[in-house]
Amino acid sequence: MPARKPGRHFFANPGPTNIPDSVLRAMDRPSMDFMEADFIDIFDQARAGLQRILFTEGEIFFYAATGHGAWEATMVNLFSPGDTVLMVGGGYFSTAWAALSRGFGINAEMLEVDWRKGVDITQLQARLEADKFHKIKAVCVVHNETSTSVALPLPDIRAALNDARHPALFLADTISSLGCFEFRMEDWGIDAVVGGSQKGLMLPAGLAFTAAGPKALAAHKQSTLSKFYFDWTAMLERRFRSFTGTVPIVPFFGMVESIRLIEEEGLENVWARHARLGSATRAAVQAWSVSNRGVELYCQDPARVSNSVTTILTPEGFNADSLREILREKFNVSTGGGLAALTGRVFRIGHMGDLNEPMLLGTLGAVEMALKLSHIPHGRGLDAAMEFLTQ
Amino acid sequence: MPARKPGRHFFANPGPTNIPDSVLRAMDRPSMDFMEADFIDIFDQARAGLQRILFTEGEIFFYAATGHGAWEATMVNLFSPGDTVLMVGGGYFSTAWAALSRGFGINAEMLEVDWRKGVDITQLQARLEADKFHKIKAVCVVHNETSTSVALPLPDIRAALNDARHPALFLADTISSLGCFEFRMEDWGIDAVVGGSQKGLMLPAGLAFTAAGPKALAAHKQSTLSKFYFDWTAMLERRFRSFTGTVPIVPFFGMVESIRLIEEEGLENVWARHARLGSATRAAVQAWSVSNRGVELYCQDPARVSNSVTTILTPEGFNADSLREILREKFNVSTGGGLAALTGRVFRIGHMGDLNEPMLLGTLGAVEMALKLSHIPHGRGLDAAMEFLTQ
Amino acid sequence: MPARKPGRHFFANPGPTNIPDSVLRAMDRPSMDFMEADFIDIFDQARAGLQRILFTEGEIFFYAATGHGAWEATMVNLFSPGDTVLMVGGGYFSTAWAALSRGFGINAEMLEVDWRKGVDITQLQARLEADKFHKIKAVCVVHNETSTSVALPLPDIRAALNDARHPALFLADTISSLGCFEFRMEDWGIDAVVGGSQKGLMLPAGLAFTAAGPKALAAHKQSTLSKFYFDWTAMLERRFRSFTGTVPIVPFFGMVESIRLIEEEGLENVWARHARLGSATRAAVQAWSVSNRGVELYCQDPARVSNSVTTILTPEGFNADSLREILREKFNVSTGGGLAALTGRVFRIGHMGDLNEPMLLGTLGAVEMALKLSHIPHGRGLDAAMEFLTQ
Amino acid sequence: MPARKPGRHFFANPGPTNIPDSVLRAMDRPSMDFMEADFIDIFDQARAGLQRILFTEGEIFFYAATGHGAWEATMVNLFSPGDTVLMVGGGYFSTAWAALSRGFGINAEMLEVDWRKGVDITQLQARLEADKFHKIKAVCVVHNETSTSVALPLPDIRAALNDARHPALFLADTISSLGCFEFRMEDWGIDAVVGGSQKGLMLPAGLAFTAAGPKALAAHKQSTLSKFYFDWTAMLERRFRSFTGTVPIVPFFGMVESIRLIEEEGLENVWARHARLGSATRAAVQAWSVSNRGVELYCQDPARVSNSVTTILTPEGFNADSLREILREKFNVSTGGGLAALTGRVFRIGHMGDLNEPMLLGTLGAVEMALKLSHIPHGRGLDAAMEFLTQ
Repeated sequence: MPARKPGRHFFANPGPTNIPDSVLRAMDRPSMDFMEADFIDIFDQARAGLQRILFTEGEIFFYAATGHGAWEATMVNLFSPGDTVLMVGGGYFSTAWAALSRGFGINAEMLEVDWRKGVDITQLQARLEADKFHKIKAVCVVHNETSTSVALPLPDIRAALNDARHPALFLADTISSLGCFEFRMEDWGIDAVVGGSQKGLMLPAGLAFTAAGPKALAAHKQSTLSKFYFDWTAMLERRFRSFTGTVPIVPFFGMVESIRLIEEEGLENVWARHARLGSATRAAVQAWSVSNRGVELYCQDPARVSNSVTTILTPEGFNADSLREILREKFNVSTGGGLAALTGRVFRIGHMGDLNEPMLLGTLGAVEMALKLSHIPHGRGLDAAMEFLTQ
Repeated sequence: MPARKPGRHFFANPGPTNIPDSVLRAMDRPSMDFMEADFIDIFDQARAGLQRILFTEGEIFFYAATGHGAWEATMVNLFSPGDTVLMVGGGYFSTAWAALSRGFGINAEMLEVDWRKGVDITQLQARLEADKFHKIKAVCVVHNETSTSVALPLPDIRAALNDARHPALFLADTISSLGCFEFRMEDWGIDAVVGGSQKGLMLPAGLAFTAAGPKALAAHKQSTLSKFYFDWTAMLERRFRSFTGTVPIVPFFGMVESIRLIEEEGLENVWARHARLGSATRAAVQAWSVSNRGVELYCQDPARVSNSVTTILTPEGFNADSLREILREKFNVSTGGGLAALTGRVFRIGHMGDLNEPMLLGTLGAVEMALKLSHIPHGRGLDAAMEFLTQ
Repeated sequence: MPARKPGRHFFANPGPTNIPDSVLRAMDRPSMDFMEADFIDIFDQARAGLQRILFTEGEIFFYAATGHGAWEATMVNLFSPGDTVLMVGGGYFSTAWAALSRGFGINAEMLEVDWRKGVDITQLQARLEADKFHKIKAVCVVHNETSTSVALPLPDIRAALNDARHPALFLADTISSLGCFEFRMEDWGIDAVVGGSQKGLMLPAGLAFTAAGPKALAAHKQSTLSKFYFDWTAMLERRFRSFTGTVPIVPFFGMVESIRLIEEEGLENVWARHARLGSATRAAVQAWSVSNRGVELYCQDPARVSNSVTTILTPEGFNADSLREILREKFNVSTGGGLAALTGRVFRIGHMGDLNEPMLLGTLGAVEMALKLSHIPHGRGLDAAMEFLTQ
Repeated sequence: MPARKPGRHFFANPGPTNIPDSVLRAMDRPSMDFMEADFIDIFDQARAGLQRILFTEGEIFFYAATGHGAWEATMVNLFSPGDTVLMVGGGYFSTAWAALSRGFGINAEMLEVDWRKGVDITQLQARLEADKFHKIKAVCVVHNETSTSVALPLPDIRAALNDARHPALFLADTISSLGCFEFRMEDWGIDAVVGGSQKGLMLPAGLAFTAAGPKALAAHKQSTLSKFYFDWTAMLERRFRSFTGTVPIVPFFGMVESIRLIEEEGLENVWARHARLGSATRAAVQAWSVSNRGVELYCQDPARVSNSVTTILTPEGFNADSLREILREKFNVSTGGGLAALTGRVFRIGHMGDLNEPMLLGTLGAVEMALKLSHIPHGRGLDAAMEFLTQ
């Protein structure tokens, strides 16, 4: 194993994210029986806290799984072979969600969009209106496309569904938005939410969940796709509700502490902090973008910039991963790479979870130095970020 | 949450198990990019170590999942709807494995057996010989039935397959045997192994795996059951091999340390220690069993007693869970309860993983005191255990 | 470094003691400025908690030091060269306390006693009465002699002082009694208390303290012995009160948690638990003592047996350390050895701090097996302990 | 307790310092017997590692104490009442060292110097030459005055002693230099070194030490000052060498890991990193110092700037602590305040121990924002630091 690099590792990947020390400590504990009252209390606290963060009183199904498992769980519990769902495109993750659905015999129709802008709501509404016989059982939306850093206005999509008087379920993947910026499951009429532990919830990867409202639970009863590990009906019947198999106690202890931290700060303050740090990041990128041979924001719609991650396009002919290599090797900073078609074209700065100003400035400073070492023309991004942060 | 009970919690559940402090510390770490060389090195070390413990050079597919997920993964990757498998019965876990298989359209034929003795090999061989057209695609065996504490002789089952000249795959669930007593995947002709992190591997629950030999990998290519999260083909094609989604780094760091501990002690010494502590436990139970109104070993075949767990039958009319309640409330000792039909009839003492003589004596002493407080007639079990341990 | 022994290490030394996991976690934290409000709050909580445990409203002076440092601190802050103090003998620790005092020019007169019984109060009172001119400035008493396991009745000593109408300061070393059995600084008229972190307070070694009542603070003003690191006057003048130098934040976070645990259980319940486990230990020793070639309790006064530690005499000609070696090497159990004149003659079982029944039975079981392996005749100690614990 | 501020706390105090996670984990461990072989091995590793870092084969005496305790220990072990020592002034710490010496009856003569420049070597040599009868028993030097950030050239002081043919002991306080920049005990003819755990050694406060060469050990034999807790002779006679009382195992496990990290990086690389980050800090301060109403470096001798800490003078009439308050409250950054006469006049940025570029840029960025918010005129410090770091 390579030698440790001195100093703290700056982890600016767009997930997993920085885990507060108190969350790590809460998870550093010996085994206990998950059937015992002490743990059931912790589990119930975690579930109730998650409901508050999601703004729902719906059911929550937990899985020892990654977010990909939660996608699968959600689809196999809600649909039957041959069902049609409308997948709102826009990046790597919506594409993958569609692909998995098709693998289970679901007819996932992809609404293609400009990845740098995200879906045209009018076009979406038109598609829904065209579906006279309501063959579309669900509209599936990735709230924050972590690959492109485009965040979609879920209330507008809800409005489009309403305006089209379309009864489809509304499914949202909030993996990289929950705990970062505003999300309100019930107010926004969202029927099922796919979420994971490792981003705004500031936990390690490995725990994922679906939150299901009444319409989703009703749809579940009609679903004929095979399931066992992810089966909601079996979960609800079990003595230890909402889980299959030996419950991993560790992430639930972590979640109780991470939600305590979120609520101690105040969820709206958490959102405001993400907005402030996201804006500072974009101020830096825009200051760097002085030249047509420089970097630029990937997202082209200022109303849809993401406050949890920023995807940055590097100049034509330049391999973005070589910049990431400098960041990692010289400055101990880890950033995200481009996914699928964006591989080598972009790098991504995560600014979600347990983050503050000096952490961000350290990361942005390292990026600015890496731009210089990569001979990419650039303006004074750090000065712009500091200017923004002291307004 | 109830107040903490003083002193160390004695965790004698048959899984999860005691986690060594150095494993806990290895897992108490901040996030890192699972694509980075530092982590890939850890992942490769964990995989190679697991191959050594399994005695295989086969492929290992890891899942963020419980053991139930690994069961599902194994079945959906190996079979197609309508395939027949022969499930060797014997307890709660083999019953559940069969039920899940049926849910995916697999024809799981259950070979019924006396739960207190485990399968009759002759009967198994006869069933295989009767299958002239080799409709049975696989024989599925739970190596150590954690519900009954009956451990099966896998080499004898391999011999039965060979003697019957039956080409079925041989699948073994080693969840509560691996790292506890002898298991040799390749020498014993086992094609696929289902395993979990939380027992002999001394890790928290939440990571599971399948080890697949060449015959299983070939069978996988014919499988038509739908899969995504657990899909082996996709895993093998991915840049980050053998996993779906964001790799949880934590359990892999833990596994490297737990395998280091196992190999520092020596795997055969680990088995010998489990044999010694298992025998001491049974010596205690037999000394307690002085009366026909007392406790007795559930397993009736002395050749098949389990060295990782002991299931103890309590007297007719006595609720075993009331004994467990005394153990927990008065002595801070957690034991396992009876599963399914055995609920309230038995309790189970796990003696697997990171265990030594004083830990076991503390547990057995608490049990002996709980027997007294429950007015169950009993002999001097602790003396018998100490006698055995000092022979 | 030798390989780790499997299973949990049983630490039955009479200090340091078992540290609860939650205390370890509370201490596993990064640096912070000890001048900041967050830490001052923690410091104040620790001090206030310690005052409650001591039953005093007196001043507490903390030292980064071991108990030996606290002894020195107490003496150099209270006395002047040539002062006389009466040291109540009884074991290794009172002897060492006297020796250190002499090194600073204090005339430490040792009241010699039978180590197996502890001081004769009548003799002590006679000595005080004989001191017509009150040359004796202080009576120094080790509440619980950790080397002999004799615990002294401090209220009786207070009464002797009163009956003799002697104005000497009353100093008590509570290092191995505080948090284990009853101690009440103000009710018992104790002027200064020497304490440490590593026993009943369930913390690592390295923090020690003196609690000083009004009479001690007045005496301090007359003291002319040189001091700097331990100087109370300087401590009281400092902005960060009651400490010299960079305050180690770690043990104070630990102390807040350990006192929280003590008070959650209830201090009187903690004392009762120590009494119960101490009695069970002695029941075992007495059951072992069947032969005049066997072991026996070192303490010969049943009214003065210690509830935090038991010193056990081994047969003439037998080296007690060879028994400890078996315990350590074969059973992963650590016990205390004999100190000074008792080296090789005794071993000591600590039963203080974070302890419960199965921990104690595991230790006693290992001792009983080690007695057998050492061919020391013995009765059934474990049975006697269990009998006591289930009365 | 106030609510936690989000994100990682930036700890830029000049000691204690950032503790690497692996060091924290190495210290998060249960109790063990410090007399056992396993711990003695760790102790020996720590001592040997410290000797390598110090470049000495001399004796090391460890104390559970802060650095102030190590000062006292060193003086009471080396001197007798009435001895004269020459204290090289220059800041808060040399002043305190002199004061403590006087408290023990040592005649500590202070060589007064310009605090912003440090001692004039010629003047020092003249003083030594004037001491015809060698009444001066020792020259005491604080290698790095943490209050002023002036680092002294110890080889030049050695040369002055040699040139003056003066036999005085040469004592150095390396508390804030060791592990940060070059120090070589034997090559530089230093007889005794006072050190602590909490700075370049990247450990918590609470462990301190003296390294003593042959001339110091010889002087010790003549010393008549009283000592017990810190007594070197008693330490050397003890079975557990070089310590008094119950050895705190925790910091020794930490030290083995911290020295492993230092040596993995390479001690000279550690020094080079401190030089790089120290220079970047000063580049920032100099860029900020555009105005005579702005901040400036306190140290006025460019050859003596410290690579472990930078003291920054704020404008006349401005309270430096109000800047520190903004840093702490708005940006979660902790810096050091001014000591003694410098209270309110300066603030101090520690850049020692486990530090890298993004950590430093985060801190400097926060300072630059705090300057702006404090309306202190300033240039672009962060740009200058980045410029330096990418040269």
